[in-house]
Amino acid sequence: MNSSGSLSRTEAWRLLLLVGASGGILVNTVQGDGAPLVASIALTGIAFALGFSMVRWLGPVFLKAGLKGKDMAKPRRPEIPETMGAVCAVVYLLSLIVFIPFAFYKDIVAATSGGGNRDVVVEVHHVETGRYLHRFPHGKLASYLSGLLSLQSVVILGIGDDLLDIRWRHKVLIPAFASIPMLIVYFVDFGVTQVVVPVPLQRYVGDFVDLGWLYYMYMAAVAIFCPNAINMLAGINGIEVAQSLVIAVLLLFNDAMYLAPVTPYPHPATDSHLFSIYFLLPFIGVSAALLCHNWYPSKVFVGDTYCYLAGMVFAVVGILGHFSKTLLLLFIPQIFNFLYSTPQLFKIIPCPRHRLPKFNAVTGLLDTSVTEWPIPPSPLVAAALHLLHKLRLARITTNEDGEIVESTNLTILNLWLVWMGPMKENRLAWHMVVVQTACGILGLLVRHRLALLVFHHDNRTFGLV
Amino acid sequence: MNSSGSLSRTEAWRLLLLVGASGGILVNTVQGDGAPLVASIALTGIAFALGFSMVRWLGPVFLKAGLKGKDMAKPRRPEIPETMGAVCAVVYLLSLIVFIPFAFYKDIVAATSGGGNRDVVVEVHHVETGRYLHRFPHGKLASYLSGLLSLQSVVILGIGDDLLDIRWRHKVLIPAFASIPMLIVYFVDFGVTQVVVPVPLQRYVGDFVDLGWLYYMYMAAVAIFCPNAINMLAGINGIEVAQSLVIAVLLLFNDAMYLAPVTPYPHPATDSHLFSIYFLLPFIGVSAALLCHNWYPSKVFVGDTYCYLAGMVFAVVGILGHFSKTLLLLFIPQIFNFLYSTPQLFKIIPCPRHRLPKFNAVTGLLDTSVTEWPIPPSPLVAAALHLLHKLRLARITTNEDGEIVESTNLTILNLWLVWMGPMKENRLAWHMVVVQTACGILGLLVRHRLALLVFHHDNRTFGLV
Repeated sequence: MNSSGSLSRTEAWRLLLLVGASGGILVNTVQGDGAPLVASIALTGIAFALGFSMVRWLGPVFLKAGLKGKDMAKPRRPEIPETMGAVCAVVYLLSLIVFIPFAFYKDIVAATSGGGNRDVVVEVHHVETGRYLHRFPHGKLASYLSGLLSLQSVVILGIGDDLLDIRWRHKVLIPAFASIPMLIVYFVDFGVTQVVVPVPLQRYVGDFVDLGWLYYMYMAAVAIFCPNAINMLAGINGIEVAQSLVIAVLLLFNDAMYLAPVTPYPHPATDSHLFSIYFLLPFIGVSAALLCHNWYPSKVFVGDTYCYLAGMVFAVVGILGHFSKTLLLLFIPQIFNFLYSTPQLFKIIPCPRHRLPKFNAVTGLLDTSVTEWPIPPSPLVAAALHLLHKLRLARITTNEDGEIVESTNLTILNLWLVWMGPMKENRLAWHMVVVQTACGILGLLVRHRLALLVFHHDNRTFGLV
Repeated sequence: MNSSGSLSRTEAWRLLLLVGASGGILVNTVQGDGAPLVASIALTGIAFALGFSMVRWLGPVFLKAGLKGKDMAKPRRPEIPETMGAVCAVVYLLSLIVFIPFAFYKDIVAATSGGGNRDVVVEVHHVETGRYLHRFPHGKLASYLSGLLSLQSVVILGIGDDLLDIRWRHKVLIPAFASIPMLIVYFVDFGVTQVVVPVPLQRYVGDFVDLGWLYYMYMAAVAIFCPNAINMLAGINGIEVAQSLVIAVLLLFNDAMYLAPVTPYPHPATDSHLFSIYFLLPFIGVSAALLCHNWYPSKVFVGDTYCYLAGMVFAVVGILGHFSKTLLLLFIPQIFNFLYSTPQLFKIIPCPRHRLPKFNAVTGLLDTSVTEWPIPPSPLVAAALHLLHKLRLARITTNEDGEIVESTNLTILNLWLVWMGPMKENRLAWHMVVVQTACGILGLLVRHRLALLVFHHDNRTFGLV
């Protein structure tokens, strides 16, 4: 790894080879009926190469412009470029835009039944287009563009957040604003707010229930949660990008379950999951490129822009692909981290500005960071902290009078260090990747196996079940 | 005017009144068939109030974040916030997004014939929906969203340009990248690349000629030209916003000519011009708000972001509204400024980094800025400069040997000062507003009167003609 701002000769050749191969594949997809999925994969290769190069090239430019931060968990606290996620975001958005003709070219529409997105015929239409494997209905164009608008919005506001010192309670709302285009186009274009009722409740409320505006509130909540959840699980090299990559790859795996070789088609959910794949593939490309520079020892920081973008990508595919509940099952570590943090977020326990693990310059290891209690906590809080300590869900230090003087910060990273003891930064990041993957696979298993307990059928016809 | 970062009591009350009145009107448009045009006007009021307040509130935040610049044409060269156009851009984009349900709500679609944008029936469809006054076909949603995407793209790249020190030859291409979503959706959704042939040429090439990919090149050229042209006519307080406002208001006036009380309906171009109005109205709102802070003496600078946004708004309405040739007639001063600048842009005459008029601290007036010639120009260039001097199109200073030692920078602002002599900054800005307005009105007259000389009929049935 170098930070000179230019690619090494080996890197340059490898990337050129990747771009050449991807470009060739891309051009070949234009023939005949087109092959959007192959085109998307080829674009992912190009996005990786472009993202990798741009981050390298723009590093010194960002440093010069004062967009930089200190890496506190290194002996010399080097200054490295900050907000580089914005560069990847631009490459990602460009890939999504360039992909439009491959997925939506009107000759494709002519081949299918007409493509206008009429609610009444949407079921029939889905089934009809299902015959055209990996083909995408033109009527989804508005939907795709609205997702793109929400992603662009979150990038604009994310850059604003990275530049200006925005207060915590304002930051939280950035994804809410960014989700507006998606929700509005959903309202204008689909307006489907009915949800399937779980079997045990069907006798009371019927098979479907129309949630109306509550459904929009729910979608907004998902859009607010995902970006902030990723932004909150941060603080060590590579963790923001790595967790996003794990979630994206698991989502992609779940989407692939709905495609033709795996599931018999026509399958009504194929289109939704193709939609998701087309958003996820280039995201995986640019994230992998960013991770090459951001993994321990980081040459660049990603900034809030990346976290917001990642969360918004997941929110967009979950909402517009109609699998937001499945999505949340992949956020188990993030949900745990959020719930575990609440005592500090709501200031029941003091919350320092940064809660990232502390670097020990002597051992070179990361250890838990702590909240100091200059005044001992109230008896209730003290009792709660003692309980957490006993349950090994936090660690407290008491003085000779038994009063609490320190307690570990309530983040999943600190908790892991409480359990495992001090470790190197990259080892902690790897552990988190494993945790994220394990929880995600568990979540998907629960979703596809246990869904049958509360619904008449899983929307995926597993051969096994 | 204050720079304290808060609204005065009078301002706060006036803006609240405006928001209240606009909000009331907006809510009233939801009844019955809806009234998108009224809703757009009401949103413009809200956009003005929000833009005005946000620029005021965020001024100190931008200063603190280091986003600031020195006003060189003031005795004390005060430092004021830079890039504030980005704030207005966000408010503008939000207005456009919030407007979507007012223009495209699907009940409206149900009322019209179906709304799917089929190329074959597009003419009939236009005429049909023409009956529903100020009603907008749902099929234009993708088009509207693509315009929005291009505007967001230009804002993202514009912010990048304002933050990083991007080279001139890269900057020029920013609008080209930003125009991609618009052009791609145009390709996917309409693909109409035929143009009407002027009468004198019809005997050679027929009534219509299909330009194919050349038409896309033309649209891209328009999208590159407009933002850069506005960015180039800059350098004194308020000039960027003022010229954009004049162009926007004239375009709005031209659009209004195609609406129902003025023109008999159904008129085939009504939809296109409504489209344009919906983009222009909130732009006028936020620009007016920004001008309040940016007019002499400026409390904020607008940054390249604003110039790119403004130019892209014009490119979007001109291209998607199908009146890009009319649009260019409103850019006469900018086109002149560009052509006049070419000798410096192509380095035939040395080009200093800034060519803005020079402030004379003694008189308090602006005078022409000059290029110095440490080595006298080549005989050809010298002859050309002498000619320009004689035609009063530049001013040169010669030494006792008759060699050129100084020549005025070739911008429209400097030329005006050559003609009119030194003047105060705000007076120069006013003069430019008058020039822009006069040229624009002339352009529109030419377009609607002289069009008959080369086309069978103007697409506007003027009662007079």
